[in-house]
Amino acid sequence: MRRAARAAADSGLDGLLVAPGPDLVWLTGHRPPETERLTMLVLREGEDPVLVVPTLEAPDAAEAPGGPALTLRDWTDGEDPYAAAVSVLGPRGRFGVSDNTWALHLLGLRRRLPDTTYVALTEALPLLRAVKDAAELARMAAAGAAADRAYEEIRQVPFAGRRETDVAADLADLLRRFGHSQVDFTIVASGPNGANPHHEAGDRVIGHGDMVVLDFGGLKDGYGSDTSRTVHVGEPAAEEREVHDVVRAAQEAGFRAVRPGAACQDVDRAARAVITEAGYGDRFIHRTGHGIGVTTHEPPYMIEGEERPLVPGMCFSVEPGVYLPGRFGVRIEDIVTVTEDGGRRLNNTPREMAIVD
Amino acid sequence: MRRAARAAADSGLDGLLVAPGPDLVWLTGHRPPETERLTMLVLREGEDPVLVVPTLEAPDAAEAPGGPALTLRDWTDGEDPYAAAVSVLGPRGRFGVSDNTWALHLLGLRRRLPDTTYVALTEALPLLRAVKDAAELARMAAAGAAADRAYEEIRQVPFAGRRETDVAADLADLLRRFGHSQVDFTIVASGPNGANPHHEAGDRVIGHGDMVVLDFGGLKDGYGSDTSRTVHVGEPAAEEREVHDVVRAAQEAGFRAVRPGAACQDVDRAARAVITEAGYGDRFIHRTGHGIGVTTHEPPYMIEGEERPLVPGMCFSVEPGVYLPGRFGVRIEDIVTVTEDGGRRLNNTPREMAIVD
Repeated sequence: MRRAARAAADSGLDGLLVAPGPDLVWLTGHRPPETERLTMLVLREGEDPVLVVPTLEAPDAAEAPGGPALTLRDWTDGEDPYAAAVSVLGPRGRFGVSDNTWALHLLGLRRRLPDTTYVALTEALPLLRAVKDAAELARMAAAGAAADRAYEEIRQVPFAGRRETDVAADLADLLRRFGHSQVDFTIVASGPNGANPHHEAGDRVIGHGDMVVLDFGGLKDGYGSDTSRTVHVGEPAAEEREVHDVVRAAQEAGFRAVRPGAACQDVDRAARAVITEAGYGDRFIHRTGHGIGVTTHEPPYMIEGEERPLVPGMCFSVEPGVYLPGRFGVRIEDIVTVTEDGGRRLNNTPREMAIVD
Repeated sequence: MRRAARAAADSGLDGLLVAPGPDLVWLTGHRPPETERLTMLVLREGEDPVLVVPTLEAPDAAEAPGGPALTLRDWTDGEDPYAAAVSVLGPRGRFGVSDNTWALHLLGLRRRLPDTTYVALTEALPLLRAVKDAAELARMAAAGAAADRAYEEIRQVPFAGRRETDVAADLADLLRRFGHSQVDFTIVASGPNGANPHHEAGDRVIGHGDMVVLDFGGLKDGYGSDTSRTVHVGEPAAEEREVHDVVRAAQEAGFRAVRPGAACQDVDRAARAVITEAGYGDRFIHRTGHGIGVTTHEPPYMIEGEERPLVPGMCFSVEPGVYLPGRFGVRIEDIVTVTEDGGRRLNNTPREMAIVD
């Protein structure tokens, strides 16, 4: 919290306002629900951290890992929660607010404090959570290893004749069995569904001859996993193999572009160049990657235009894909962390196209 | 969507901006993730609804129940999503924004459109979703009945010697078995933990002689359940029975205050008066109830100061409680819907203190 307050001051901000969500978890370990009840951490350089908190959530806040460092400023149902916040903020200033702060609360503060201004935390301090320390990296690696074990097991289950949702349920069970406390997504996108990168899992019965995109992850000990492999039910056709080879080469190229000082967009460019060269450039319809940590999607983004440099300790996905509408899709994804001289994959299962039953 | 746009115009707004979350589900059936990627429904009277949507989520949006009525304005990773929104909004106006819109997105719009102003949807149109139609009421009743079945079953499981989290897991399984697609909370608060109204479930081993507050709910067919009962492991002591009787009488009084035209605060006052009269007024530390529908917590709130009238079709909880720090707590909760001449409970399990093993 001290480091965050200092970073805010260095950026010309008068403080940080942190709503329930990943920033609050990262700073305090407190995980209240995200509701209409105002909970807000106020960090200002040189002052103790203050948590504005509903009275009935105050005991949980006090018991959070960061609780002992917090001054609790509680309010009770029926009181004006923004009055509680106003007394902490003072009449004016420019504050960073966590991205997912509810508009209800931001507008409530602004109404009370018309002379305050706000900027989104990822605009002001985009990389506050991005660089992981050794303890965080150990947890990231453990989450990745658990996801890898889930992939090794899921390859053994029957695919043909079962619904996508059945395989997705198996994947969720496996993630939990290998230590995930929370499953965020278990995408099973078979045949033409694979051509929609955000298809989750539906009632479609997987058939012999289908390509199946698997993309799954969640949280283990508070840190995220996210990996994708594309498998095939029975022997693939030549074109399916060709597209898979292209994506695999693109993923390899993206990984090889990871090193300290390279720009985020260099990772995207390296992966995209392989796909474009192969003639599928217009079928790679998303960015190459996203950061990961206490959430499964966060800055930095591996995308054209993102010129910020990679720094040792950053963790993000490298996940190029090719999507052929009405037919099939392929995506291959590892979480990669930046080391002193390159990158290290936190997912290490085979990236060859696995043949499943 | 037409009705919402008209209500906005009647309130002097130039339109409504709806982010992913319950308002968007209610209006369109579309359930995208809540992320840094801008998805926003724009409703303006006399114009077709427009959904600003990431390209890769456009297929899901088109297939949502409300998809055919939407004009999709998609944007691709690397483009400025706010530019897409700006072209829909025009340079000025006063808009209602859904409460849970991320600050990131609200600030992004304001930066692009400095002459626009915003008000939170529950400030502008607090009861937009509050009055349920017949189809919604049928789903609310079915969700309540499923939660009731879960309560009937959980009374049969052993409590003593098991951790709160074990009983909570049983409750979650039961809710799913009886048709819930999503479990939002399974509070199991035993002994002194019951005195914290927001305790969820922890490692505490439930003992003989414990009071245990059970408070659980989630979504079934898109609509919410939420019910609480307080049970006792073995025979209760006289004071435990007395406090339970007080809370039960308060819950009954709150329910009896429900009728069209009564104010929300009348329900709170009726329940609170019973508890205050019994000498526990300062131990009832939360409001008496909250609305419920496509979410398990929403307006209207049964709280002192909320003078808006009850209207047939509204659904909300009536859940007084008494909390004795370090010792135990009691809460009893039903979902109630307003009828033409009173109220109807959607939870109908016995409210007597059940004795469990």
